[in-house]
Amino acid sequence: MLRPRIISYNEVLALLVAVMIFPLIACAGPASENGSVIPKQLVDQAVLLRERALLDNLSVDIVESLTTEVGARRVGTEGDKRAIAWAQAKFKELGFDRVWTEPVPVEYGWIRGDAKAEIVSPYPHDIVLTALGYSVGTAGDLQGEIVAFDDFEALEAVPEGNSLKGKIAFVAYSMADFVPKPGDSRMAGYGKGTRARTRGHVVAAKRGAEAIIIRSVGTDNNRYAHTGSGYGYEEGVRKIPAAAISPPDAILIENMLRRGGPVVFKMNMTSQITTSIMGANVIGEITGRSDPENYVVLGAHLDSWDEGTGAIDDGAGVGSMMAAAAMIGQMQQRPKRSIRVLLFAAEEIGLIGVREYYKANKINLDHHLLGAEVDGGGGRPHTLISGVGVNALPVVREMHKLIAPLGIAWSEANDAKGASDMSVLGRAGMPALNFMQNSNDYFDYHHTPNDTFDKIIPEDMRNLTAAYTTIFYLASEMEIDFRQ
Amino acid sequence: MLRPRIISYNEVLALLVAVMIFPLIACAGPASENGSVIPKQLVDQAVLLRERALLDNLSVDIVESLTTEVGARRVGTEGDKRAIAWAQAKFKELGFDRVWTEPVPVEYGWIRGDAKAEIVSPYPHDIVLTALGYSVGTAGDLQGEIVAFDDFEALEAVPEGNSLKGKIAFVAYSMADFVPKPGDSRMAGYGKGTRARTRGHVVAAKRGAEAIIIRSVGTDNNRYAHTGSGYGYEEGVRKIPAAAISPPDAILIENMLRRGGPVVFKMNMTSQITTSIMGANVIGEITGRSDPENYVVLGAHLDSWDEGTGAIDDGAGVGSMMAAAAMIGQMQQRPKRSIRVLLFAAEEIGLIGVREYYKANKINLDHHLLGAEVDGGGGRPHTLISGVGVNALPVVREMHKLIAPLGIAWSEANDAKGASDMSVLGRAGMPALNFMQNSNDYFDYHHTPNDTFDKIIPEDMRNLTAAYTTIFYLASEMEIDFRQ
Repeated sequence: MLRPRIISYNEVLALLVAVMIFPLIACAGPASENGSVIPKQLVDQAVLLRERALLDNLSVDIVESLTTEVGARRVGTEGDKRAIAWAQAKFKELGFDRVWTEPVPVEYGWIRGDAKAEIVSPYPHDIVLTALGYSVGTAGDLQGEIVAFDDFEALEAVPEGNSLKGKIAFVAYSMADFVPKPGDSRMAGYGKGTRARTRGHVVAAKRGAEAIIIRSVGTDNNRYAHTGSGYGYEEGVRKIPAAAISPPDAILIENMLRRGGPVVFKMNMTSQITTSIMGANVIGEITGRSDPENYVVLGAHLDSWDEGTGAIDDGAGVGSMMAAAAMIGQMQQRPKRSIRVLLFAAEEIGLIGVREYYKANKINLDHHLLGAEVDGGGGRPHTLISGVGVNALPVVREMHKLIAPLGIAWSEANDAKGASDMSVLGRAGMPALNFMQNSNDYFDYHHTPNDTFDKIIPEDMRNLTAAYTTIFYLASEMEIDFRQ
Repeated sequence: MLRPRIISYNEVLALLVAVMIFPLIACAGPASENGSVIPKQLVDQAVLLRERALLDNLSVDIVESLTTEVGARRVGTEGDKRAIAWAQAKFKELGFDRVWTEPVPVEYGWIRGDAKAEIVSPYPHDIVLTALGYSVGTAGDLQGEIVAFDDFEALEAVPEGNSLKGKIAFVAYSMADFVPKPGDSRMAGYGKGTRARTRGHVVAAKRGAEAIIIRSVGTDNNRYAHTGSGYGYEEGVRKIPAAAISPPDAILIENMLRRGGPVVFKMNMTSQITTSIMGANVIGEITGRSDPENYVVLGAHLDSWDEGTGAIDDGAGVGSMMAAAAMIGQMQQRPKRSIRVLLFAAEEIGLIGVREYYKANKINLDHHLLGAEVDGGGGRPHTLISGVGVNALPVVREMHKLIAPLGIAWSEANDAKGASDMSVLGRAGMPALNFMQNSNDYFDYHHTPNDTFDKIIPEDMRNLTAAYTTIFYLASEMEIDFRQ
């Protein structure tokens, strides 16, 4: 995905800076009076800023404001429109110099409607389920015998055809019980769950199933169903309803199946796919004092799923990124370069906002000096992974030393591409930082009605925000080219 | 509540036994070859039984069976009828010698119906709420400004009249944030919450309110509302709807109120009080081999609230009590005295089943030698409190030594009256034991949709069951009068 680029004025400038900095890095003796490649005055400022940020509750207050004054904000809904207005007003209130929106057209809209389900036999029970995003409805009651599969791969292993005709496919995979194998990524258990969530309806339909239900992709045992996107039916494949059931209800069904007889399930969902809708990315800028046309970018997504108030997903990202930039903006003078906070639309249904942003802004990609995103809740960062040029690397290592007291380790990988939305820009060539965070109980709550403000741990959020504030202050104040 | 009693044949017999046992207790030397007032052979049997019970998953399997094959079973519902049939069949399957039901008429029935609510302004939000048991419905949408009270006492402090006319009273008390004062009982935080739950609708109506909502009485921050009984409107006082809202929604409303302006709430509940219904206590007996007409009693309640499957409240009680008696029944011979497992109806709406039981059986109260009940979940017992006569006390202390290895302490109080339903019999004079249990996360789940089988911790349940099995084996095998 790397494309040939024309060298820009700023790159030439940055190259010159790099050439100037290089001897500082390469020489054996102390590079500056404090032994760092970062000037002592900047180090002092950064440390002061870090300490102030640790005491400043702004990031938490922003999440409180967003979840109270807006709440649920799935793209295209009234809540989303309120969120877009809220974000612009909040940027202005926080003293950002420029605030604007960029349109994000989305091909289809969706109405969640109601979702009810029950076990009809052998033992009647109400079942807690929720439609997966962009599922079709059931057109009245849909009833069928359950055919269970341990995981998505087991469903896929059934030959295409009609063997599931009249049946409801049930993928019982439990993320909570996933045991990683050596070499698995830390997201492997989630990834395995999302395969059924995003593709299950197509794969089940190709085997004749009338509907698919999956055990919620989450780590909890609460009686909530975790929604998520099933966006994208396949051309020429029958559109069948797709829903998630709560973990306790999945266990209940498995206990019934273990008794040997058929389990008959009835579901009724009034979900509906609609015509196209319009969302918007909202952008706030702290304009640089000497190099305003180049910017570091802090990302989060503004949209949320529609059953909670989107506190951890991704209010935590909105709060920490807005607060980090605002605190830098509250210093005596603007940093040299601009800081842009990018609040993306429609992340939840497939990074649609950032793709639109990229389409509109790729001509300026070189002006995106460095990016990072928070989209994993408000937990403390534990490791910083850079994704920068070899010349910039020693400087980022020095920057890291200023946040190491927050308990953040350094990773040698230097292969960061940016998290969530930001990965679209990172993979296109923008230097990036990934802050690995303690996920706390993120996957207990996310995509459920239970993602609410009380799940935010203020001390963790302040710690997270302080880390971003410190690093991005330095990144916006120093004349370093992170690409080199 | 203690009434004068006529001395019975059994009491005379027990007195004789006590006189025989007394020297064993009073003498300085060892009472039996193992230094206990309990014969060595019995001690050996009890220890063997305890160890077997620790390995036997029967109590957990019973909860699995009840929650899977029956599930929700509020008194008078179809689920309750299934539960009554299930309990009789299960007693028989487990080898109980006699199984019967006793009718429990209940003055009113209740249909839960649907419950929806939202904040209308200043910021629209859907609110998770549930009707409190036996609340009337709203007869369409009911809308009003919220007037918040810190707790029930603050609502009560408002003079009677019409000051809340057109308003919805909101009791914000949080059990999770309750700080006990010296001398408070360990249930003080719950007790404070239940006052608003059981009386709030009457007190609010007397001040003109259109409805009352309370923050759920629970210790969690999950987005569930905890139901509970509001049974009992007051003659001559307007019947207003009563509901509980989830803790996160209570926090949301408080955050809105903190902004200063009015908060307008809309609710719609289709609950309905109906005509009388019929429940049943279900009783299973392991018949004693030599003194069948006297019995120790193990209690739990069979009914549950209607949104979860009643695993911890009170499947755990049903499972542990049935299993304890069944395991004693599986020994080579029946114990001398009978063991009765009493599964009460309609506990959740005010101990109605046990009151009916008492009415029908008080003539035989003297035959109830000793009682105990589990109605606080499946957590491990940590302390045994006796409520027995002074002569029996040293014997019970010796019994306790056989369960001390399970981590159970001894309380000197000797003032136990029996827990939950059993307290009705205990206060009427029946000797009782209270096993104080670790409550685990009982008040996180109870009375919510989240009270499901997965919340049972099998190892804890086996431990709990082993304690009861051991003590009640001895109590049914020894000829001791716990009243003396």
